[in-house]
Amino acid sequence: MCELLAMSANVPTDIVFSFTGLVERGGVTGPHVDGWGIAFYEGKGNRIFKDVKPSCDSHIAGLIKSYPIKSVSVISHIRQANRGEVSLENTHPFNRVLWGKNWTYAHNGQLTGYEDQLNPQYFIPVGETDSELAFCWIMEKVTERFGDKEPEDLIPVFNYIAELANELRRFGVFNMILTDGKFLMAYCSNHLSHITRRAPFGKAILKDTDMTVDFDKETTPNDVVTVIATRPLTTNEEWTVLKEGQWRLFELGEQRI
Amino acid sequence: MCELLAMSANVPTDIVFSFTGLVERGGVTGPHVDGWGIAFYEGKGNRIFKDVKPSCDSHIAGLIKSYPIKSVSVISHIRQANRGEVSLENTHPFNRVLWGKNWTYAHNGQLTGYEDQLNPQYFIPVGETDSELAFCWIMEKVTERFGDKEPEDLIPVFNYIAELANELRRFGVFNMILTDGKFLMAYCSNHLSHITRRAPFGKAILKDTDMTVDFDKETTPNDVVTVIATRPLTTNEEWTVLKEGQWRLFELGEQRI
Repeated sequence: MCELLAMSANVPTDIVFSFTGLVERGGVTGPHVDGWGIAFYEGKGNRIFKDVKPSCDSHIAGLIKSYPIKSVSVISHIRQANRGEVSLENTHPFNRVLWGKNWTYAHNGQLTGYEDQLNPQYFIPVGETDSELAFCWIMEKVTERFGDKEPEDLIPVFNYIAELANELRRFGVFNMILTDGKFLMAYCSNHLSHITRRAPFGKAILKDTDMTVDFDKETTPNDVVTVIATRPLTTNEEWTVLKEGQWRLFELGEQRI
Repeated sequence: MCELLAMSANVPTDIVFSFTGLVERGGVTGPHVDGWGIAFYEGKGNRIFKDVKPSCDSHIAGLIKSYPIKSVSVISHIRQANRGEVSLENTHPFNRVLWGKNWTYAHNGQLTGYEDQLNPQYFIPVGETDSELAFCWIMEKVTERFGDKEPEDLIPVFNYIAELANELRRFGVFNMILTDGKFLMAYCSNHLSHITRRAPFGKAILKDTDMTVDFDKETTPNDVVTVIATRPLTTNEEWTVLKEGQWRLFELGEQRI
């Protein structure tokens, strides 16, 4: 199984603390050694760092840990390959441009028996993963339903994506995180947790490595920061654990659905 | 004016030497201080590093200089903003997926009077630059001409892109580098040079910083490495300087057109 991590915040926030916990699972406390990736939004642009090396000994992961890139929307993934070889084109997160916006996505789980069912004609995958194919299929279905122009209200779009995710769940495990840079959607098949931190901030203790952070020193009283992860990353906080078929939509840190 | 840099090689090659010269132009020997970006292909996947800070004092540019990422196809750009504010979404290179492949592009120059003429309906720009709009227009025209499936022979596609570049040149200066990871196209409007290095390899001396490399020690006798740059990067080699309207196509280091 792979590890997902996402963040949605109302002010640009660095994710060094959570990412430090996650990368330990890439070869130290977890078996996820087939590459990793992380996307940071800054405005409408995003930057995606990927590496096929295990995150625990990746030079680029070292950069992310030491160099706080501040963002309101982050998606990260550590991969244990099951479908598709270990290569850059098979490494999450995946990105496509739709409606003049970057849509970024990562998936955890494995699908089977989908080959005849998912046949996007226009959004063609670059790599061989079931994950990217599912993403391309979602993008194409959304385009078919909502057209080439972005709707004013995106809530119906995310509701429709949740319907599509329900369909994908018929083929296996489909835990997903998806963002357009403003909204962050989390869909649970079997493992996905989230927590929203806001004032008064306290201390948090990472589960996977010996590290504590005092968010009170890192934040202002108006900050709202939601973190989504496959499993809770800290030992002393209350995370909400989603059930099968449940999903959430966050907008700049605040839960909308 | 911005600076372009690209590399096409028959074996994965690092671009540290050329990139070191280029980043000096981002704030030290040149005025290009509005961000920079670089794309490396590895197989069908690519990684794109971007920063809105000047390249000469960018933490991420430091990573690229110290950590040789080997690639057969690289595109890089240092920006001096003229259209569109300094932001990540306005930073080159730009990437779109067409026919299940990553197409990456950077532009140097400035276009005017194009607003009514370039109206892509499907490939919508994320940022506000004339450069990304021209790229989207090219991608859309290529799709209209060649359809949703990749043609077996890509040479007619690049010939058509050269025709489109001729049209874009009517709106101003349009120096362009474009790659699908295997082919690298260079189109000259007023400034673009290239050099192909092969055995016997010699020493090269960078123009912009005090650095010499002995390629004989860095290569094998079968390596073929082409470098494209706005202006020649070295002082002791013969670069081919392209004229207005000229273009080149390289395939894994070797010139095809």
